[in-house]
Amino acid sequence: MKKIETCISPDLIHLHDLEGKTVVVVDIFRASSTMVTALSNGIQCIKPLKELDECRNYKDQDWLIAGERDGKQAEGFDLGNSPLSFLDNAFAGKKLAMTTTNGTRAISLAESDCNEILIGAFLNLQATVDYLKSTTNDVLVLCAGWKGRFNLEDSLFAGALSLELGWKHDCDATLAMEALFQKAKQDLTGFLQKASHTKRLQNHQLEKDIDFCLNLNTYHSVIYLDKGYLKVKPGRNNKKRLSHQRNSLNL
Amino acid sequence: MKKIETCISPDLIHLHDLEGKTVVVVDIFRASSTMVTALSNGIQCIKPLKELDECRNYKDQDWLIAGERDGKQAEGFDLGNSPLSFLDNAFAGKKLAMTTTNGTRAISLAESDCNEILIGAFLNLQATVDYLKSTTNDVLVLCAGWKGRFNLEDSLFAGALSLELGWKHDCDATLAMEALFQKAKQDLTGFLQKASHTKRLQNHQLEKDIDFCLNLNTYHSVIYLDKGYLKVKPGRNNKKRLSHQRNSLNL
Repeated sequence: MKKIETCISPDLIHLHDLEGKTVVVVDIFRASSTMVTALSNGIQCIKPLKELDECRNYKDQDWLIAGERDGKQAEGFDLGNSPLSFLDNAFAGKKLAMTTTNGTRAISLAESDCNEILIGAFLNLQATVDYLKSTTNDVLVLCAGWKGRFNLEDSLFAGALSLELGWKHDCDATLAMEALFQKAKQDLTGFLQKASHTKRLQNHQLEKDIDFCLNLNTYHSVIYLDKGYLKVKPGRNNKKRLSHQRNSLNL
Repeated sequence: MKKIETCISPDLIHLHDLEGKTVVVVDIFRASSTMVTALSNGIQCIKPLKELDECRNYKDQDWLIAGERDGKQAEGFDLGNSPLSFLDNAFAGKKLAMTTTNGTRAISLAESDCNEILIGAFLNLQATVDYLKSTTNDVLVLCAGWKGRFNLEDSLFAGALSLELGWKHDCDATLAMEALFQKAKQDLTGFLQKASHTKRLQNHQLEKDIDFCLNLNTYHSVIYLDKGYLKVKPGRNNKKRLSHQRNSLNL
């Protein structure tokens, strides 16, 4: 029987044994949503980086650089952290170096110790679920949070993922987030209105980003870390899902 | 406007500024429930201690020693960590030195930096709420968790406390736990059946402890740390509440 557990903050990662596990890194607002969107819109690969300076070094004609701190695009970068920038294959064929406040840090924390890293978002929830069911690994959902603190949207994703997997587990955080997602799923946007990060993005007039990040299953891409680069998992059906399939989840 | 925030694990306490705050330490199963019960049943004071050995040193004719590790009474101690041991004023007049797996550690983490420490449990929820409303301090609920991990029952208490206070806040953990408590409140025992610590206690045939710890407002005692000793707050109405008052909460 495969197991799932949830780590609700990168600052609690030391409590979890990552060996042999698939770690699903989630940063709904907005890093993981942006990664899924960029790679589903023709970006070749993403190099996730912790520091602004190391990210800046990637800038050349093949590479775009994306930098975000505290919700805003960092100075001197091509892009910030909005999934909307990548729609309609806007940068298809390019490579992307990316650093964000929380998401890229979470990836770097898990990178060395686990079996595989996936990037999860509501945008590719079903694809991620299908893939996890097809492998033998136990799963740890690593919520990027906000500077170490619990956040609502990442935790809700953990609950949604676990409900879809339907595996037994013994993890209180997962139990709590399942119950919370069941309560919130009818109106995710409404439920998240009071969330601290929603308010932060609203202050920057980023309501469209919020709405986009909460779409379910817009993409059927499985995103994984391959020797330090995020890519679309080959050999799977990565086509955009048809709109009538979007609500096929048992959520 | 006073604020409330929730720290869902002692391992995240470094993210919170404790200065000037009242910290409510909660360890529903069972340390904070036992402390509230003991002090509401005539125990003079409780010395919370981190280590078994330092607790053993308190043993003499005036002092009882209570030691628990991993849910079980530690060897050589008078008592473990069951609130039921103290009912009917069984040890009235005695002093108690106490060490537990999670609860006493949480107290020691907050002790030096905050303005005041209270001990919160469902058993004295309304009393704690009334007191917090009467002071000017902001509040941090510190969930003892289980060896650093999130747990369900302590987090649910944080939600219940915040709902009762009704203060505005900007804390995602508090928001999540409010929503969770609203979902769970009709049947707390049923909701907690799957929780990891409930299972742990059930394995030790401690179902009666679980049921007792989930009673609302059995006591109207406010429990606070006074120069290293837990005591009943003087000058408040610490009488046992009448049973018809138990459901007077707006929960």
